[in-house]
Amino acid sequence: MIERGSQKVVALGGGHGLYASLSALRRVTDRLTAVVTVADDGGSSGRLRRELGVLPPGDLRMALAALCGDDEWGQTWSRVVQHRFRSQGDLHGHAVGNLLIVALWELLGEGEAGAAMPEATVAGLDWVGRLLGAQGRVLPMAAVPLDIVADVQGADPARPEEVVQVRGQVACATTPGKVLSVSLVPPDPPVCPQTLQAIEEADWVVFGPGSWFTSVLPHLKVPELARALIGTRARRIVALNLAPQPGETDGFSPQTHLEVLQAHAPDLRIDVVLADRGVVEDPDALEKAVRMLGGRLMLADVAAADGSPRHDPARLAQAFAQILRE
Amino acid sequence: MIERGSQKVVALGGGHGLYASLSALRRVTDRLTAVVTVADDGGSSGRLRRELGVLPPGDLRMALAALCGDDEWGQTWSRVVQHRFRSQGDLHGHAVGNLLIVALWELLGEGEAGAAMPEATVAGLDWVGRLLGAQGRVLPMAAVPLDIVADVQGADPARPEEVVQVRGQVACATTPGKVLSVSLVPPDPPVCPQTLQAIEEADWVVFGPGSWFTSVLPHLKVPELARALIGTRARRIVALNLAPQPGETDGFSPQTHLEVLQAHAPDLRIDVVLADRGVVEDPDALEKAVRMLGGRLMLADVAAADGSPRHDPARLAQAFAQILRE
Repeated sequence: MIERGSQKVVALGGGHGLYASLSALRRVTDRLTAVVTVADDGGSSGRLRRELGVLPPGDLRMALAALCGDDEWGQTWSRVVQHRFRSQGDLHGHAVGNLLIVALWELLGEGEAGAAMPEATVAGLDWVGRLLGAQGRVLPMAAVPLDIVADVQGADPARPEEVVQVRGQVACATTPGKVLSVSLVPPDPPVCPQTLQAIEEADWVVFGPGSWFTSVLPHLKVPELARALIGTRARRIVALNLAPQPGETDGFSPQTHLEVLQAHAPDLRIDVVLADRGVVEDPDALEKAVRMLGGRLMLADVAAADGSPRHDPARLAQAFAQILRE
Repeated sequence: MIERGSQKVVALGGGHGLYASLSALRRVTDRLTAVVTVADDGGSSGRLRRELGVLPPGDLRMALAALCGDDEWGQTWSRVVQHRFRSQGDLHGHAVGNLLIVALWELLGEGEAGAAMPEATVAGLDWVGRLLGAQGRVLPMAAVPLDIVADVQGADPARPEEVVQVRGQVACATTPGKVLSVSLVPPDPPVCPQTLQAIEEADWVVFGPGSWFTSVLPHLKVPELARALIGTRARRIVALNLAPQPGETDGFSPQTHLEVLQAHAPDLRIDVVLADRGVVEDPDALEKAVRMLGGRLMLADVAAADGSPRHDPARLAQAFAQILRE
């Protein structure tokens, strides 16, 4: 049994990786903030972004659902926001929570000038958080929709050495080539003050797990956010993935993940790297890579017991709790 | 100032008329139930009905919004459920509350056989009611989607005497001809037990105001519901409209409204007919028509002070309170 403390923890990421870290961290602290990617251009989020000109809400919705209250109220509304319509028609594939978040943004931003929009963005997410009885806060990593641009080698199998630019989260995540680095369009987006404040006041900042190039690294390519992440007095944890991701990080060793992280933010110091004991093939090499970043390696059993490449929330919570205690 | 009592009141109708009666009745009693038409085939409701095979949720949503809590929570979620998307795309015109109600129906009805669907229907509406802090309960008048069929005279201006059948709420409400009567498809739909119980246990049942043929009379054409409305020990109030409705009731006097009501349910006894003092041109004729139904006429100032043909919630509440006291 973990005793829930009150250290301020900020978790960075998006999608299923962030869902996993939040599901664990909510057991460890009652002061949890998620800072979430807003670069999705696929599925329900991509359609809403194109149709209504809003931030893609999907990763934000999933983070909110990960924090929902344990009671019947929180559980039910969490199922509602995660529910997707299935039909032969216009609504097919839309997640209800995406529509709800966007409606709140439209309502709360009505009649407001552009400068007031970050306020409505945060207020809308806070309202959905209250609906779910969320055990923490969910904030966007930028106040405007972003596009990920990746330098990809060998996207065309006929030209394995050629490096081309691929644009859009879906395209980057599914390219047959090797992703070398990512950047963002626009390159210097505005960031909500609440996001910067959360990082500034944090005791711990957690990177990953998650899609490395499209969910974890983008935060470091938002200049204002990168400055906050480098400048914060918080200690920094990197939670490594359990397996390389087809397309994005095919064939990447744990150390390669860290090298790529460092390449995207050379000034970022890391305090702890958390990896699953069972999947690290060369602990010495990883240990060395971690020391290069200025941190220490923690190996723990954090994978699901059934052998599937996903984190077990209770085990991951145990590992985070140990890190936060030390 | 009206003191809110605890008599059990059931309000029948749909659309803006029911919104008006609920806005007034919620001030008069803390035991209020709306029984709402499910025959809409236009707009957001019609599209959801066709795309997902569900009850048209729009009238139910509007009734829920009329009952929302007075605090910031209730007001905000009421604005959210009433919010409509505006775009050049697929979501244009959909009301957020319609999507939310349908999502709850899908979720709560998952894996249930057909017989369990009325349970999920009522449970879903109760969840939205809880979200809004609703001051009362909203139930559907039938457990399956209905189509209104109207006998219309002179729908084709070239043949003013011809009577044809017009199908669908939108078509009936906008026909250029004169509506003579309405019926339903299917003709004997199942009714949720909670709906029948509310009518059975009621102290008062209120018909109208509202679109006469498409929101008020359909309840009487559901046989199970008609039997409950005729058999209940509750006293029955008819709240007349302030003006005839173009298309549906063009040129109808107040007494014509009552005659049409009686023609659709000959066994229905009415206790009180409430009409606005300012719009009744021939009180004696109306009084006579009311007596034919076995009731008494109450004239009061219930129209908005600005002269627009809509009920003032406070004035309408005052009139209802007086009726319930006597």
